[in-house]
Amino acid sequence: MALDDISLQKFGYIERKPLNAINIDPLQRGGILTDEARRALVQWGDGYSVCDFCLGVLDEIKTPPIFDFVHDALPEFLGIDEVRVTNGARESKFAVMHSMANEGDWVVLDKLAHYTSYVAAQRAHLNVKAVPNSGNPDYKTDPEGYATAIEEVIRESGKPPALALLTYPDGNYGNLVDAKKVASVCHEYDVPLLLNGAYSVGKMPINAKKLGADFIVGSGHKSMASSGPIGVLGVKDEYAGIVFEKSPTNKLKEIELLGCTARGATIMTMIASFPTVVKRTQNWDNEVADARWFSEKLEGMGLIQIGDRPHNHDLMFFEAPALYEISQRVKKGRYFLYKELKARNIHGIKAGLTKFFKLSTYGVGRDDLSFVVDSFDEIIKKYE
Amino acid sequence: MALDDISLQKFGYIERKPLNAINIDPLQRGGILTDEARRALVQWGDGYSVCDFCLGVLDEIKTPPIFDFVHDALPEFLGIDEVRVTNGARESKFAVMHSMANEGDWVVLDKLAHYTSYVAAQRAHLNVKAVPNSGNPDYKTDPEGYATAIEEVIRESGKPPALALLTYPDGNYGNLVDAKKVASVCHEYDVPLLLNGAYSVGKMPINAKKLGADFIVGSGHKSMASSGPIGVLGVKDEYAGIVFEKSPTNKLKEIELLGCTARGATIMTMIASFPTVVKRTQNWDNEVADARWFSEKLEGMGLIQIGDRPHNHDLMFFEAPALYEISQRVKKGRYFLYKELKARNIHGIKAGLTKFFKLSTYGVGRDDLSFVVDSFDEIIKKYE
Repeated sequence: MALDDISLQKFGYIERKPLNAINIDPLQRGGILTDEARRALVQWGDGYSVCDFCLGVLDEIKTPPIFDFVHDALPEFLGIDEVRVTNGARESKFAVMHSMANEGDWVVLDKLAHYTSYVAAQRAHLNVKAVPNSGNPDYKTDPEGYATAIEEVIRESGKPPALALLTYPDGNYGNLVDAKKVASVCHEYDVPLLLNGAYSVGKMPINAKKLGADFIVGSGHKSMASSGPIGVLGVKDEYAGIVFEKSPTNKLKEIELLGCTARGATIMTMIASFPTVVKRTQNWDNEVADARWFSEKLEGMGLIQIGDRPHNHDLMFFEAPALYEISQRVKKGRYFLYKELKARNIHGIKAGLTKFFKLSTYGVGRDDLSFVVDSFDEIIKKYE
Repeated sequence: MALDDISLQKFGYIERKPLNAINIDPLQRGGILTDEARRALVQWGDGYSVCDFCLGVLDEIKTPPIFDFVHDALPEFLGIDEVRVTNGARESKFAVMHSMANEGDWVVLDKLAHYTSYVAAQRAHLNVKAVPNSGNPDYKTDPEGYATAIEEVIRESGKPPALALLTYPDGNYGNLVDAKKVASVCHEYDVPLLLNGAYSVGKMPINAKKLGADFIVGSGHKSMASSGPIGVLGVKDEYAGIVFEKSPTNKLKEIELLGCTARGATIMTMIASFPTVVKRTQNWDNEVADARWFSEKLEGMGLIQIGDRPHNHDLMFFEAPALYEISQRVKKGRYFLYKELKARNIHGIKAGLTKFFKLSTYGVGRDDLSFVVDSFDEIIKKYE
């Protein structure tokens, strides 16, 4: 490709087509910006803007109040001793694995863990032992499974795993495992527990101390109304010296963070949305009620909600035999559902999926949820 | 801190005070957004917006045209076979070190390397051998110094270093070492060379192939008019399979990138600014002329420009005995310069510095540069 005027035309400013759609993609619901964050983006968009008054390291910046946010507000919000912002939940997980474990060590995680938990372990050259679940249709993870997995690791490697990880909730079925029990099982073996709250931190009340977690990870772009990539990492005092070890040559800089992480507008959108995010976690019961109402409506049309029942989270997985059946006989085939939803300005179920799909009801509100429900009803009836 | 209405007031939307200042901070000049990038930010600000039509991995996304940008435009722009976007230059460097070297291996770098090059090596558990320079006032790095350093590593460890790194230019003096010679010296020992172009990629013409670099690293927020954190990483075919190794469990996902990196508005600002960025690199000679003109003016007032002379880059380091002398006797002490510049709406020389400081003339333009020059003149005369 020659970089001439013609070829460069495809870059530059580009519109986002589904910007104003009702977006039910679980990836997207919790990351929709607040008005404050949208204004912050414009104000702080330039490259290294937050470093105007840097004292040497991102989380020590007093103007804007990043120091207070990271060292005061976030620890309170997450219920943990020390917090840093990172480039995302996956980067938080890798930082913990890479600093807490040595190459060849083991990490125990739930089989439903996000792919990035597996990839983070691979990047840190760790072995993975997965805790199984009950499989279809509930996919329940028994906290005692962590004991079994830890004992297997001890048997195979002669020592306990360096870390256990629980995905809370998992990103496929939105299942919430009893984290407190998992923590207490892990602690019986002196194995620290990392809670991956990419879909919970910023949406629902969650407190690492109360659950007994040693590490907690959140995602700004997934669940804290922030522009990505940005995440949070909370660490118990006991392990803070390991995870946040400082460089021998650059005394202010933390090695696992490569000095500074979210060094741009991303952190300012997280700060801008934070008051709203704190408040919305207090509205969680209503969100769960909306999810259950929505699930009931879809089940009334013959869809089947997989995972925890009644459901405790906005992220839900559906099996839809009726829609699959339609896809087998209509002209547009498996793309018919995507196209029908698109015609109704509903986005977020991946093009081509009909038999199984996930979605989120988070923050959609009853009006738009009713519209989505009615749309499913219409589409099914249309092809009857 | 209780997270109540009162304590939360300090967060939310916050203004950026120096937004409209003439900003001569080297960190900031190349990262100022284009209008297109500013519009893209608003359009793509929401969390995971770019994943609307994701096919499984960031750089494969066709809508928006991330695939074409990453696999077609950027390789051409950087003169290298394979490119990925990353969370920043430091993250690019760590990915290369972590994948190319084993724990305990050596990396050779210029003593003027950015602190993140040292910290990335520490994070990868590598040993560092630094190539010295001529010291004050030129800080010249002799390409032959790489041969000496490599031979020292071979003597001490029994094998060549896993990687060499050259900072092009360095972030303190803006010196440009003869990269082609460094590459040829390194290749004599079969040591691959990484070029850290955090202050060059996006500002000046730079082509990895022509310089003989095996890896090239750039920073979006420093030099590509992008909202951070975002960077680029270019890799020669020969090493692409190592650096971009895919996960055994998640076949599409690259381990060192933890699957996806700049998964937010950051990549859309880079794409938005790209046509302008390509064009501005063709204006580099004028930028160098501006830098030299500015340096000459300041030297006329008794300041001394350290590093390459005549200078070949917008990033310049000055020694200012006259300003230091003033700071010793005025009431505001070492903060007088910062305050005087601030009163003139000039930002970017760190508060408290008077004897030594760095700045950048990049994209400031002759009018504003003249104003900065006149301001220095006024300030010096005021305290005579």
